[in-house]
Formats: sequence, C-alpha cells, structure tokens
Amino acid sequence: MRLIALTGGIGGAKLALGFAKLLTPDEVSFVVNTGDDFEHLGFHISPDVDTLTYTLAEEANPETGWGRRDETWHFMETLERFGGETWFRLGDRDLALHAFRRTRLDAGATLTQVTRELCGKLGIAHDVWPMSDDPVRTRVRTSDGFLAFQHYFVRDRCAPAVTGFEFAGIDAAAVNPELVAALREPVRAVVICPSNPFVSVDPILDIPGMRDLLRGAGAPVIAVSPIIGGQAIKGPTAKMMRELSIPATTEQVAAHYAGLITAFVLDEQDASAQPAVEAMDLDTIVAQTVMGTLQDRVDLARTVLDFTDRLRAALRPTAN
Amino acid sequence: MRLIALTGGIGGAKLALGFAKLLTPDEVSFVVNTGDDFEHLGFHISPDVDTLTYTLAEEANPETGWGRRDETWHFMETLERFGGETWFRLGDRDLALHAFRRTRLDAGATLTQVTRELCGKLGIAHDVWPMSDDPVRTRVRTSDGFLAFQHYFVRDRCAPAVTGFEFAGIDAAAVNPELVAALREPVRAVVICPSNPFVSVDPILDIPGMRDLLRGAGAPVIAVSPIIGGQAIKGPTAKMMRELSIPATTEQVAAHYAGLITAFVLDEQDASAQPAVEAMDLDTIVAQTVMGTLQDRVDLARTVLDFTDRLRAALRPTAN
Repeated sequence: MRLIALTGGIGGAKLALGFAKLLTPDEVSFVVNTGDDFEHLGFHISPDVDTLTYTLAEEANPETGWGRRDETWHFMETLERFGGETWFRLGDRDLALHAFRRTRLDAGATLTQVTRELCGKLGIAHDVWPMSDDPVRTRVRTSDGFLAFQHYFVRDRCAPAVTGFEFAGIDAAAVNPELVAALREPVRAVVICPSNPFVSVDPILDIPGMRDLLRGAGAPVIAVSPIIGGQAIKGPTAKMMRELSIPATTEQVAAHYAGLITAFVLDEQDASAQPAVEAMDLDTIVAQTVMGTLQDRVDLARTVLDFTDRLRAALRPTAN
Repeated sequence: MRLIALTGGIGGAKLALGFAKLLTPDEVSFVVNTGDDFEHLGFHISPDVDTLTYTLAEEANPETGWGRRDETWHFMETLERFGGETWFRLGDRDLALHAFRRTRLDAGATLTQVTRELCGKLGIAHDVWPMSDDPVRTRVRTSDGFLAFQHYFVRDRCAPAVTGFEFAGIDAAAVNPELVAALREPVRAVVICPSNPFVSVDPILDIPGMRDLLRGAGAPVIAVSPIIGGQAIKGPTAKMMRELSIPATTEQVAAHYAGLITAFVLDEQDASAQPAVEAMDLDTIVAQTVMGTLQDRVDLARTVLDFTDRLRAALRPTAN
C-alpha cells in the first residue's frame, strides 16, 4: 500500500526524504506544490519541485535548504554586471535543470514528464508528482495589492504584511493524473508534510476535486505541524498567521485543515496543546518534529508510519 | 566622417577590433549579421553580435575566437548529465548575456537596444548595430534538405555539402534604422570585413534596400578577402565554394560582390590574382591580411583606411 505525502519546499522535503529512506518507490509517492512556479530569465522554475528533487537526490545545499551543493555563481556575477535581475539566485549547475525543463516544456512535455526525466537522471527512483500539470500561480495579497509569490518570498524577503492569498489559474487546474490513478489503489495514508499551510499546502488542496479525492482514499489523513512552540523552523508561516490575526499555534494549524485531516502530529514543545487538538475529533501524537539531521528525518518518518498503522488498525480492528 | 564596417563573426571581428583601436565611436560603426541567430534552451543567441561584442570588449576567448575567456562550464556539464542538448557550447558567464537578452526582448526591447545596453556594460563605446531588428534566419540547403544554420555550422560541424542558402524572413526585414540614419551623413567608406560571403555577409546585403543604401552613400565600398591562398583562415568559406562549384579563389570573392564593391583587398599570397581583380573594374591593394596578433589587426585596419583615403582623393581630385 502506498503512502501519499503532500509537500512544499524545505521543511516538507526533509520529512519526504525520511519516507524515501524507509519506503520503496511502490510504497510512497510525493505530491508537490507548484503554486510557487514562475517564469524568470526565460526559464521555467519550479522551486518546490526542485527543492524536493535535490533533497531526494541528496544534492541539496545543506546550508540554504534550496539550490545545489557544490555550486558556482559565475552566471549570477555576470548577470549582475549587466544589470540583470539577480534577486533570485540561480547557480551555474542549477541553471541546467531549469534550461532542460524549459526545452522539454517547449517541446510539449508535461511538467510531470519533465520531472520524471530529471528524477531519473538524478538517480531518484520515487515518484515526484507536481500537484498539477496546469499552471497555478500563488499571489500574496498585501495592503499594497497583490505580489507574485517569488517577489514576495525571495525578492521582498517576506517583509510585506499579508492579508490573503490567491491561486491564479487553480479553477482550471486538474489534479495530476498519476495521483488520481494512485488514489484508486489502496492507500496506507495521506500525510501533509510540515510545510506552510497557506502557500505550500493550500494550493495543492484547493485544486478542484483534490480534497474529495484525498478524503475518498479511505485512509488516515495526517498533518505534521509546521508550527513548533509558536514558531516555524524556517519560512514565514508564523509571521503570516500573526498578520492574518490567527494565533501562531499548532492547534490553529490543525484547525486550518479541519474537515480534511483525521489525525495530527504535534511537536514535543507543544504537548500542552494535545487536548485542544483532540477536542477537534482528531487523533494525535506528540513527537520530536525538528529535523536537524538525516537521522531526525528518518526517525520522524518512522514515527508517522507507526502512528499511521495504529490508526489503520483502529479503523479496522478485525483486519490482521 | 564615419566608416561603416559590415561583419560576421570571428574573422570580421578581428578587423573590426583593428578599426575600433584607430577610430573613435563617431568615426566607425559596425553592422553585424544576425542570420545566425537562434533560439536555444530558452535563450536568444546572436552568435556574430556576441563574437564582435566580446572581441571589442577584449573579453573573447583567444583560443576559440568565440565565447569568453576565463569561462567555466558547470552549466554544460550538468546539462549533459540531464541528457540536454550540449552541441552548442554555452559557458556559465556567457549564459548571463543570453539570459539578459531574452529578458529584455521579452520586455519589448529591440535587438539594437539590448545590444547597446550590453555594449555599455562591457565598456564598448562604439556602435554595434544588428543588421536588422527583424528576425532573419539563415538556412543551409543540402542534398538532404534545409538545415538551420547553427545545426549545420556547430552541431554538424559543416560536414554536409551545401547546395545553396535561404534567409528566412528577410523579405520582411527592415535595415537597422540606426544604419539608415548614419548613411544619411557623410560616409568615409563601407568596408566588408573578411567574413564568409555566403552566410555572414549576404544576409546583411540581401535585406531589402540594403545594397542601394550602401551604394548610395557616395563612398568607396571595399571588401577584404576572406580567402587567402585558396583557403579560409577559419570556417567553411572555401569548402562551401568548392561544393557550389565555384573556384575557392580570392577573385571569385571579388566577383561575388560585383555590382556593389568598388575596391578589393587581396592578401599577399594572392598577389598574382591582382590583375584579374582589377579587370573587374575594381581598385585593389595587396596587403598582409592574416591577423594572428592584435598588432596585425590594427595594421590591416590602418592599411584599409589609407587605401580608403587614396580612393576618396582619386574620386574627388579637387578636394583638399
């Protein structure tokens, strides 16, 4: 039976790597946010897909979480000299991935096909499925109007206060057909990795039909909290919650996913919130969810898998 | 008075650099073939413009003649790993120029504007004018059909035998308006630099109205032979002539430009051909046209300038 893990970039990719270390390509597949995708300098850039891909290939830059290790920056240095746009950092080796993708998309390949080709060349055996092959573009609403996501996230370093979000194109986007096919087979669980609920997970969930498909899989739907002790390990989740007048707490993350999830994983630092989350009619466990090392990632993946299997046993007490 | 120098890539750019060393930006401007331009990996690549630009900036790779010196190849190495198209070699620093150009063209700039911006950043004070802002694409006819120029030239290393050429789009292409304006002012001479007559110079000359504009400048039109002792220093000129059943001789180059040029520069190795070229009603000089060193380039430029001024004096014997 297959685990379906939904993920955005850096935080989610860490847990995804943990799953990939424990489960075969038949046992886990990854569904990735593409709301962050954008066209830049003639390239098609899929930041979350790329972060997951480099992470699974164990070629991610361990210091930044994004981009590649062993990278050089001669392209960027020269582009700066020309007065080009350098706010989105593209390493010389990383560029090859974006140029390859551009070429294949121009030739008519889908994002799913290109991603499979790149994964193959990077030695990744697991399926990495973009949430959709149709373009969805996250825009961040601020008091000054909408910002394209990467302008908000990278260029403006998340400084503008957010008042909401828009996923342009989502009404016309179809769920990735590979995911649709996988959900017709028995599913061990759906896991929402610890990514930003608003800009990494919601674009996935808001694709028309996605929530029904996930709920209809007949399996536990488990979210792992990206909020730990009122903070996000990385990224603007906690800042966004405050700006949206939502308390930056793990129970608010659980509430955000109400109606979809059946279980929730809280960090040890938030053990006191467990009763409040259980009161939402959710199964819970408390775990060490900070993933500083590779061993932490594998450990959390194993904890979530064990939780999953206990939940399944409770659902079907007579199964062996 | 301004010298107008028409040029393709490597050979012509050497003489262009010689002129740039001797003449101010008011005294010489360069008109460059764009028939070699192509879209590749999402970039807009203008090989002859780039070769001239890097040459004038004295940042060209002295070993290859194309591309930049102090270059790295991490993009290409990674693209090769992905199975991407690597037959056209793009260095990491060189890529920045192509990405900058792509971005500016997408924003609505003309190729002339982008080229001016890039020249400014590279410290080039002279005008580098693409022959046209409209797309012209050279295609090489072979016994197996047409090949896009870069496929013939780089990917297939000029191996296919040519039977002719086509400049797609040329009927709709307008002469660069900066050149049109310059030709309204007094012109010292028009010089056709030693570039391939068929694929570097003919695309320039075949733009509708170009020949009439150049002839109408009231100045000598001088070609410098790219054929020396029956060979081209670099590139397929002599091979093409043989395949087209044209003897690979300097006099055949002069004949190719019949009706446009008024004077011709032969190499010392071809001194015996001087009477035959003069019989075409052309003024001639014999010069050292092999340009191995920077000094050779400056020396040839000075020789051509002196020849130009003698021709002008002969045209107008009463002028001072």
